[in-house]
Amino acid sequence: MKKKVAVVGATGIAGQQFLVALERHPWFEVAALAASERSAGKTYGEAIRDAATGARRWWCNEEPPAAMLSLIVQRADDLDLEGIDVVFSAVESDVAREIEPRYAATTPVISNASAFRYTDDVPILVPCVNWDHARLLQVQRQRRGWRGFITPLANCTTIGMVIALKPLHDAFGLSRCLMTSMQGVSGAGRSPGVVALDIVDNVVPYIHGEEEKVAKETGKILGRLGEGGISPAPFPVSATCTRAAVIEGHTESVFVSTEKPCTVEEAKQAMRDFAADLPQLGLPSAPRQMIVVHDDPFRPQPRLDRDVDGGMATSVGRVRRDDALENGLKFVLVSHNTKMGAARGAVLVAEYLASASYL
Amino acid sequence: MKKKVAVVGATGIAGQQFLVALERHPWFEVAALAASERSAGKTYGEAIRDAATGARRWWCNEEPPAAMLSLIVQRADDLDLEGIDVVFSAVESDVAREIEPRYAATTPVISNASAFRYTDDVPILVPCVNWDHARLLQVQRQRRGWRGFITPLANCTTIGMVIALKPLHDAFGLSRCLMTSMQGVSGAGRSPGVVALDIVDNVVPYIHGEEEKVAKETGKILGRLGEGGISPAPFPVSATCTRAAVIEGHTESVFVSTEKPCTVEEAKQAMRDFAADLPQLGLPSAPRQMIVVHDDPFRPQPRLDRDVDGGMATSVGRVRRDDALENGLKFVLVSHNTKMGAARGAVLVAEYLASASYL
Amino acid sequence: MKKKVAVVGATGIAGQQFLVALERHPWFEVAALAASERSAGKTYGEAIRDAATGARRWWCNEEPPAAMLSLIVQRADDLDLEGIDVVFSAVESDVAREIEPRYAATTPVISNASAFRYTDDVPILVPCVNWDHARLLQVQRQRRGWRGFITPLANCTTIGMVIALKPLHDAFGLSRCLMTSMQGVSGAGRSPGVVALDIVDNVVPYIHGEEEKVAKETGKILGRLGEGGISPAPFPVSATCTRAAVIEGHTESVFVSTEKPCTVEEAKQAMRDFAADLPQLGLPSAPRQMIVVHDDPFRPQPRLDRDVDGGMATSVGRVRRDDALENGLKFVLVSHNTKMGAARGAVLVAEYLASASYL
Amino acid sequence: MKKKVAVVGATGIAGQQFLVALERHPWFEVAALAASERSAGKTYGEAIRDAATGARRWWCNEEPPAAMLSLIVQRADDLDLEGIDVVFSAVESDVAREIEPRYAATTPVISNASAFRYTDDVPILVPCVNWDHARLLQVQRQRRGWRGFITPLANCTTIGMVIALKPLHDAFGLSRCLMTSMQGVSGAGRSPGVVALDIVDNVVPYIHGEEEKVAKETGKILGRLGEGGISPAPFPVSATCTRAAVIEGHTESVFVSTEKPCTVEEAKQAMRDFAADLPQLGLPSAPRQMIVVHDDPFRPQPRLDRDVDGGMATSVGRVRRDDALENGLKFVLVSHNTKMGAARGAVLVAEYLASASYL
Repeated sequence: MKKKVAVVGATGIAGQQFLVALERHPWFEVAALAASERSAGKTYGEAIRDAATGARRWWCNEEPPAAMLSLIVQRADDLDLEGIDVVFSAVESDVAREIEPRYAATTPVISNASAFRYTDDVPILVPCVNWDHARLLQVQRQRRGWRGFITPLANCTTIGMVIALKPLHDAFGLSRCLMTSMQGVSGAGRSPGVVALDIVDNVVPYIHGEEEKVAKETGKILGRLGEGGISPAPFPVSATCTRAAVIEGHTESVFVSTEKPCTVEEAKQAMRDFAADLPQLGLPSAPRQMIVVHDDPFRPQPRLDRDVDGGMATSVGRVRRDDALENGLKFVLVSHNTKMGAARGAVLVAEYLASASYL
Repeated sequence: MKKKVAVVGATGIAGQQFLVALERHPWFEVAALAASERSAGKTYGEAIRDAATGARRWWCNEEPPAAMLSLIVQRADDLDLEGIDVVFSAVESDVAREIEPRYAATTPVISNASAFRYTDDVPILVPCVNWDHARLLQVQRQRRGWRGFITPLANCTTIGMVIALKPLHDAFGLSRCLMTSMQGVSGAGRSPGVVALDIVDNVVPYIHGEEEKVAKETGKILGRLGEGGISPAPFPVSATCTRAAVIEGHTESVFVSTEKPCTVEEAKQAMRDFAADLPQLGLPSAPRQMIVVHDDPFRPQPRLDRDVDGGMATSVGRVRRDDALENGLKFVLVSHNTKMGAARGAVLVAEYLASASYL
Repeated sequence: MKKKVAVVGATGIAGQQFLVALERHPWFEVAALAASERSAGKTYGEAIRDAATGARRWWCNEEPPAAMLSLIVQRADDLDLEGIDVVFSAVESDVAREIEPRYAATTPVISNASAFRYTDDVPILVPCVNWDHARLLQVQRQRRGWRGFITPLANCTTIGMVIALKPLHDAFGLSRCLMTSMQGVSGAGRSPGVVALDIVDNVVPYIHGEEEKVAKETGKILGRLGEGGISPAPFPVSATCTRAAVIEGHTESVFVSTEKPCTVEEAKQAMRDFAADLPQLGLPSAPRQMIVVHDDPFRPQPRLDRDVDGGMATSVGRVRRDDALENGLKFVLVSHNTKMGAARGAVLVAEYLASASYL
Repeated sequence: MKKKVAVVGATGIAGQQFLVALERHPWFEVAALAASERSAGKTYGEAIRDAATGARRWWCNEEPPAAMLSLIVQRADDLDLEGIDVVFSAVESDVAREIEPRYAATTPVISNASAFRYTDDVPILVPCVNWDHARLLQVQRQRRGWRGFITPLANCTTIGMVIALKPLHDAFGLSRCLMTSMQGVSGAGRSPGVVALDIVDNVVPYIHGEEEKVAKETGKILGRLGEGGISPAPFPVSATCTRAAVIEGHTESVFVSTEKPCTVEEAKQAMRDFAADLPQLGLPSAPRQMIVVHDDPFRPQPRLDRDVDGGMATSVGRVRRDDALENGLKFVLVSHNTKMGAARGAVLVAEYLASASYL
């Protein structure tokens, strides 16, 4: 028996990515779709058709799953959760702040929104990086008297970085991290997202709020869960986040200091060995390797590496000594911001939570 | 009486930029053009025409200066320097290594090539950053018995950065510098340069040899000229150089530590005040300000800022505290790699040398 | 004494282009700015600042004219036209339909909007193509009892094409025209304009409403003004309009049949000779030549040719026989969609109307 | 028993695409690789490694087939064809002209090169469009005394167009065709291919030789094979071929006249019905449908549609009446230039020839 899933915010680009990530899923079955007033009551097929131009408002490279087209879209406010095992939420943060707690009263919610990321009893789960933080969900349930819970994804820029940092932090201890990102435009969505006028033949040196999120989330995700909650990892993180003329895939240039000295080869090996036991968990959306390490200095590149293992692997290359920091190390990573960094990453988290009996 | 100038490597893209930078110049007049065997003996107009397709092999946005089209191109090896006051060299480094010393025996050479950048008695002059290093040219002349000299430009990625660093180093002392660049494709020239297949919808995380050049040149340029030559500035520089889908303009995300603490406002003010006396020198190619400092967080952007003041100003923005470094400061800069970073920068150096009686 | 000008829709991208086109204009002086409710009462400088991010909402490459920053923005609905000699309107068509007739009661209106393009007593003036249609403005004034009038620009895709077609039509007679455009993203504005997700590494084969406009406007503009109004030019026009990853500049691949046979050289000559008397009119925004004809088969290109003569010249190349049509001719043109194709083109029309005593 | 295949020109981008197209092929097995002098004697893995930078010179998105890496590359001139059933040739035309006839003396050659496309006894086979032209291979064999034969692919720009034209020509008769292409950069290969400086923020209006090829090949492919060879289809074809900032996928805007009038719906139906019996042939590389017809006016787009059915389907949209031609019809198509338009298309041709006992 497959678990029944609801996707909220199903007509937006993030919601559409959930539908794709869940198509023909062996454990989950999309049983309900919800969106705003405007789409409510229509079939999904109607809801994503633009009456004025006849265009289909569907933005994934994959076709919309055929079974979805005839489902009736519900109003997110009135979503009927009877029989639903888990909600994937792809709404904006201000909406999430209101409706996710209502859903969580009865049903687990895995959310793309940032609304609850920085709340004390809410873990931000990143595959293989902090599965143990899932225990905080029990605290959350008890404290709030909910049958469900809320667990948000990290920001898509944070996810690739913490995956690459985790094996280094475990093996050598990190003492500082400086990062410059060159982010794909899909991370900004479509309403309006990044306007072409701003990005063709250009780099935009600012993404509102992004750098603060990366710093805060990295500390929380790499932190230690104890009695009193999560103690953030005690090293500073500083980011400059830029936008590049790339469709998908975030490229990040990272400089770190480690507490213990390590060679380039040791650093690479730690990344290659990361999460070696993942295949044994048998999670359907898991990549074969969490981190693919390149020796070719021209890799990773977003266009060539973002789709490795269905967009679920993080690609790292150019691992070198950094002479400007004590025990300095630098490298470049590419992470798929709308696969591991969004919907498919959320589905992988759901798979873990199901396998660990949280769902 | 204008000084007579020769441009060597005149048919390549860098040479063409020299012709544009020198067009209608009040002090200099192009009196000789040289290139490889293949072009020698043709008029410049013929040399830049592709016989097979009828296409003009001219790659600047500006039209080729009309007066150049009928000049006869000489063979670089046999270039007649009689009556020539200064040579602008735009040849590849391996060619430069051979022919520039021959030219320098009689005539000053200002070179785009890296061949002699790291030679002890050769200064790398960057406008307003280290004019005083020009004194090393006298040492070079004496030591080598030349009437001329060789002075190469810095790498185009170095130039913008040292301009932004110089006022900070002077005011607060730099103790480390970490930089990630997102470089325009024009920096790679056209033979073959960056192939479109590699850069559309992409970022390439490696530029062969670039990072080493940036580290080495920054130290030399910001170093102190004493009796025994230049002592490099004593702080480490670490760079990750990437290529972005941008035509022109290098964007650089810089993190530095200063020795003395400074506020963001003090740092901005130091950059705004940099080279305030430049206008008094009356150099025709000088920008009104060496550094334009932005408060708008979305600036600088290469497409919007590269052409400020004819591509001769360095634009800096997003000046902020950096929490991951002691006395940390971070900012983003944009510099035009083929204007201040190449031909027009070389012409500005020549103007300074002329005004200071080196030519 | 300069004529006083009002710019309506002054905070949008099209309005900003008017401010740039009018900066330091020898005949016109911007005396009033108007925009929507939201900006009314603020200085222009405040109106284009985004409070949330500190960003400046200004999208031209040129800086905002300093004199504008302290002007108080009026509400378009209440714009005071006392003392205003001409209104440049850069509002959306639905707004134009309402407010332009009100303005026209007292004051001439030159409009970027399509609202009145297809109205019988309204000419669509394209520089040098149909100056004579200006006589229709007298009819319009009389019929409507206005002291002013409304004259809209053509669609930016139509403008370059009719300029290239006009000399061919005059010399040889056109009997059909088939065109495929590859349009720059700036034509779509910014709200939201073209989303980067749709255009990087892509071509979009449809621009809503564009093809119909091109067909209808071409007929009207190349038509004959007689007693009963304009009789459209009697040849069919068929367009396929696509969007390319180009910032500015519309590229159009045109195939035509002529009534009289003509050689490629005759066609080129007709285009080169077009509007040879334009300089004698002394209009400040006029290009030196209306059409620049290229022999190099790799030209015109939007990035290289859009800015020729300040974006006011139309560049034509690849003029060849077409073997699939009777008396077939084919060529490619590039026209700057936001210079000649919008604000600067409107200013040139205003200059003509002023010189011909319509203003 | 799989047929043994040799790939010549195996280290270039076109050759690499053959290796990908043949990986795990159920009927064919790559038994020999050949390239130029420089690679001969090395393993394929060594041959595609750049000694200077450590970079892998491999340009497909798919990884190089593992089994290939240890194969020894032969010199194309000395290629041992003993036991080889078919040669896929990915060499340049001048090389093809010399070596393909030598190979063909003993072995069938399917070639990416244009060298023999316009030779009388050489068919240009396009899947489902002119399978019957394969009979000309027998004539070729007899006339030349070869055991093998040469059959070249069409130009990648021709292939998508003839696939879309064939059902229209069969059902309604074509009387003229005018086409403007916006071609992806991968079509130009990498040596040097399209230089990024030429295509970012740009359209290039010329591809040397392309338009003539499209016109000539379309006539030949849609022609009738009779006693005396192929009589070209008797309608004129006129093309303007441009390059756009698109990685892969050729977009073509097509205008045609038909002899018999047809409605838009009839035209779409003819395309949808095209090659309905293809699945029954059981060819492993065949798409499910040769033509995918879109009603959404925003389709086809190269980024969204090029990869449909593994890049083997041609996507057609915007089918409309054309008012400028008699019985005019216009539409836009997208075809994958390096899948159906090159290596995978060649493999599909080989599959057909094998199933029809030509191999």
